[in-house]
Amino acid sequence: MTATKPQSARWVVVAGLGPGSDGMVTPEVSAAIADATDIIGYIPYVARIAPRAGLTLHASDNRVELDRAGHALELAAAGGRVVVVSSGDPGVFAMASALFEALESAPQYLDLDIRILPGITAMLAAAAAAGAPLGHDFACINLSDNLKPFDLLARRVRLCAQADLAMAFYNPRSASRPDTFGRILEILRVECAPHTLITFARAVSTPEQRLETVTLDMARPEMADMRTVVLVGNSATRKLGRFIYTPRKAL
Amino acid sequence: MTATKPQSARWVVVAGLGPGSDGMVTPEVSAAIADATDIIGYIPYVARIAPRAGLTLHASDNRVELDRAGHALELAAAGGRVVVVSSGDPGVFAMASALFEALESAPQYLDLDIRILPGITAMLAAAAAAGAPLGHDFACINLSDNLKPFDLLARRVRLCAQADLAMAFYNPRSASRPDTFGRILEILRVECAPHTLITFARAVSTPEQRLETVTLDMARPEMADMRTVVLVGNSATRKLGRFIYTPRKAL
Repeated sequence: MTATKPQSARWVVVAGLGPGSDGMVTPEVSAAIADATDIIGYIPYVARIAPRAGLTLHASDNRVELDRAGHALELAAAGGRVVVVSSGDPGVFAMASALFEALESAPQYLDLDIRILPGITAMLAAAAAAGAPLGHDFACINLSDNLKPFDLLARRVRLCAQADLAMAFYNPRSASRPDTFGRILEILRVECAPHTLITFARAVSTPEQRLETVTLDMARPEMADMRTVVLVGNSATRKLGRFIYTPRKAL
Repeated sequence: MTATKPQSARWVVVAGLGPGSDGMVTPEVSAAIADATDIIGYIPYVARIAPRAGLTLHASDNRVELDRAGHALELAAAGGRVVVVSSGDPGVFAMASALFEALESAPQYLDLDIRILPGITAMLAAAAAAGAPLGHDFACINLSDNLKPFDLLARRVRLCAQADLAMAFYNPRSASRPDTFGRILEILRVECAPHTLITFARAVSTPEQRLETVTLDMARPEMADMRTVVLVGNSATRKLGRFIYTPRKAL
């Protein structure tokens, strides 16, 4: 797709690299990277891109998403073919929304060719590695309370549990907010049965991948870190040999 | 990964083909298909696989998921290298849970090499095509009431709306249950503001792709069919030029 564009075209693509394995990078994302003049992203994601002549790598630190998005728009406006790389899927707690926030503040860039290319998001790679715990209705919730008050987060988790939805939690725990996940576990212990299955999936699809499934009554906050996606089963989620899965039919 | 296995290995892979575009099929899925002796799946998905010597294509009709899964396990037990193909991601309202249901009824197959390979699920391809409407917390709900009572479905949608979650609806409407989606829209009209944005994304990533975004007060059941994924914004979801996006920060 991108390969057929004239070399003078200027564009911004926000591309999902998937959770880590090169086997999960889609061909359209690889093609956009191959056609780019500039790659922008968080240091560990840019480190996944092979350097080559004609390609400038712009690696930036975490928590500068808006600056990074603004930089991408400027580079494209100056004639660049710019890929903003995200882990997982760019539309799930990643760079796509940040790009649109930057665009809202700088509408002069609205006429740029801007595209979002989806990727394998961490919860779906984690679910596949575990079996099929998200095979019925589920919710996807970011446990970081940087961008929303804890009360709203707590309310969402409580309502989703009352709806008997499986849940995927992103960014469950960090050094700057070590207690949030423990408080969320307390809410789950009120709302869900003690035998509810919780899978901690760390560094999915990488050589460091580690999956651990426990019942809710045995879950401890320390089982999660920032590289972990947490999958909470619904009332029907079960173990089957080495697999965890949720049947298609509701209980 | 699969390419390094000895030719005698027997296995079952449930693989996600993504929503339609070959540019969204991951390399690990393509490698599994290249290494397979048998492909099993619903007719239109099997039709996406190129025939070749040594590969048997088993296409079956819709609504026979359990039979299909059982067939895959039998073929693998007999020495086959079997790929069950799913649209989108196999773990999201697709064949992965069906395979585990079949396995639960036939535990003699538990020692088979069984793997789930994730794919780009329709809601994330649709979100990328629209912008980033799922860029904040969201829920993913199957509107088919074949496998759950309507009351549970209604309760889930109501609670998710009260949680101010964006929502993705799969299988919103079919000839056999033409009224469900209209009843869900009525629930949304009670729970959400009239200007809530709803995107109807049909046949995403295919040549027939069609995206239409309307406000909740203008949404009509006929805007959806079985090839449509419906994305309902949260209270912060907005239009920005030709894009729909949800900011990372909660309102």
